[in-house]
Amino acid sequence: MKIGIIGSGALGLYYGAMLQRSGQDIHFLLRRDYQAIEQQGLQVNSVNGDFHLPRVAGYQTAAEIGTVDLVIVGLKTISNHHLIDLVRPLLGAETAILTLQNGLGNEELLAKAFGSERVLGGIAFLCSNRGEPGVVHHLGEGKIRLGEFSGGLSQRSQGLAVMFEAAGIPCSAVSDLCRARWEKLVWNIPFNGLCALLNKDVTDLLNHLPSKKLSRDLMLEVIAGANGQPLEEPIDGAEFSEQIINFTENMDHYQPSMMIDRAAGRLLELEAIYTIPLQRAKAVGISMPKVEMLHTLLDFGEKDSL
Amino acid sequence: MKIGIIGSGALGLYYGAMLQRSGQDIHFLLRRDYQAIEQQGLQVNSVNGDFHLPRVAGYQTAAEIGTVDLVIVGLKTISNHHLIDLVRPLLGAETAILTLQNGLGNEELLAKAFGSERVLGGIAFLCSNRGEPGVVHHLGEGKIRLGEFSGGLSQRSQGLAVMFEAAGIPCSAVSDLCRARWEKLVWNIPFNGLCALLNKDVTDLLNHLPSKKLSRDLMLEVIAGANGQPLEEPIDGAEFSEQIINFTENMDHYQPSMMIDRAAGRLLELEAIYTIPLQRAKAVGISMPKVEMLHTLLDFGEKDSL
Repeated sequence: MKIGIIGSGALGLYYGAMLQRSGQDIHFLLRRDYQAIEQQGLQVNSVNGDFHLPRVAGYQTAAEIGTVDLVIVGLKTISNHHLIDLVRPLLGAETAILTLQNGLGNEELLAKAFGSERVLGGIAFLCSNRGEPGVVHHLGEGKIRLGEFSGGLSQRSQGLAVMFEAAGIPCSAVSDLCRARWEKLVWNIPFNGLCALLNKDVTDLLNHLPSKKLSRDLMLEVIAGANGQPLEEPIDGAEFSEQIINFTENMDHYQPSMMIDRAAGRLLELEAIYTIPLQRAKAVGISMPKVEMLHTLLDFGEKDSL
Repeated sequence: MKIGIIGSGALGLYYGAMLQRSGQDIHFLLRRDYQAIEQQGLQVNSVNGDFHLPRVAGYQTAAEIGTVDLVIVGLKTISNHHLIDLVRPLLGAETAILTLQNGLGNEELLAKAFGSERVLGGIAFLCSNRGEPGVVHHLGEGKIRLGEFSGGLSQRSQGLAVMFEAAGIPCSAVSDLCRARWEKLVWNIPFNGLCALLNKDVTDLLNHLPSKKLSRDLMLEVIAGANGQPLEEPIDGAEFSEQIINFTENMDHYQPSMMIDRAAGRLLELEAIYTIPLQRAKAVGISMPKVEMLHTLLDFGEKDSL
């Protein structure tokens, strides 16, 4: 399958490299890493074993890639004002678009421009970061849950799950993408935000009992917001928040991407992870006051970012 | 009147110096500034005019001061575990104790040890800080509102107000000390906490509209907590929060003491300003969820303090 990767950060490079190694025809839109990858290929340093791709199809413009069967979007949502222009040149009549971006609003943006029938979304549980140009570090995890923006289990979504699995990436197709997106927010909203605000990792956070309680309060607000959406079945607040806490307690001193971005003075993905979820909850009459407060505190710090 | 000053930081030094200049017999318990004041006296650099006191009665132990007519307490509440031992040597049969410390719980601590009839409390609106040893900077304000811990307007409290006024310190006696303390918390809880957490001054804070809204939300929670206490008359939430915001908008880039303390890595007065007010509100069935969240976020940072 010919696949274009739009947004070749740590996520786009890792998944693209895994797919290419499994035999897919991968085309990366590159920015920072273009020169390095042209000259020396792409190096993946992974907890599952390092590997090197000597020949990688990298491009500096989307138009050069031409039409593809599948676009995978890994762009940071803070660059979503470029998203439509970057995807458009890759679209043929049958091209599907899978966005693996964070938070809410990405599928809607693509659907509005290109039609909802093209659009799938996926939630990536991936710990990775970029090293020097041409190198990506895979620290752990990697599982993807993907589904149709229009809902339901399709042949297409199940086919993509098979393709990822064949590339060594655990993947499942879900019928309720909306629920999957909100489930991820139950993690992202407390841990990305609190760790970024306080410049502390998840282990430090959960070792401070009042902050652990606050994390759970935030989760319960997000779950209430989720359950106001048209989910196939509601999320059990007590059970799911307990699961998430247990899961996070096993992440040894993990630093969420938002924490790393804040420490580096980069803009945060506040719109996708806070603003739009707050709007969606409010639209169905559900307030998330502590989420709102966390958003305010994070937003204030953005004035110091680049 | 023979007066002992326990806690000679910026507040204790400034008020003590003003009282001495007006003719009162002032005795300072000194720590950091002892040597400098012994050698060169006490210098006050004030927006109202600088002055110098060449001879100052400074001591390194409370016992040397002996009994006084009035103890003024300016100790940081984080040192309250020393408070009783420091005050005790100064008490004669008729000695009154006036605590000008921040937050809640200080009068109770003194009343429990020495009897409530001795205890008065005061709220100081003072912008001051310490310079090099022997120098205190008075940046503005200075007004005190004081009252009996047991409530009511007494001859004693009105007499102290006259004494402060005669020293050039605006002062009024109030019959409802509890209300005055909570009114001050309506300022302290949002502005001390948010500025310390975000390392921003009050002007920066209020120029960010979501943070201004959050400040008001916090004030309204504190006012609800206050109105659950046995006040002589309740505080009008909308009107009082508006007043406080207007007042604070005129404080040009003021840095609350808690912001300065956090930036310097010093411990914060969280118990007096957050923990005890939260307990008092909870005891009458009132929750202050955003105040609680702010307290949690501040408390977490204390692990990095000295």
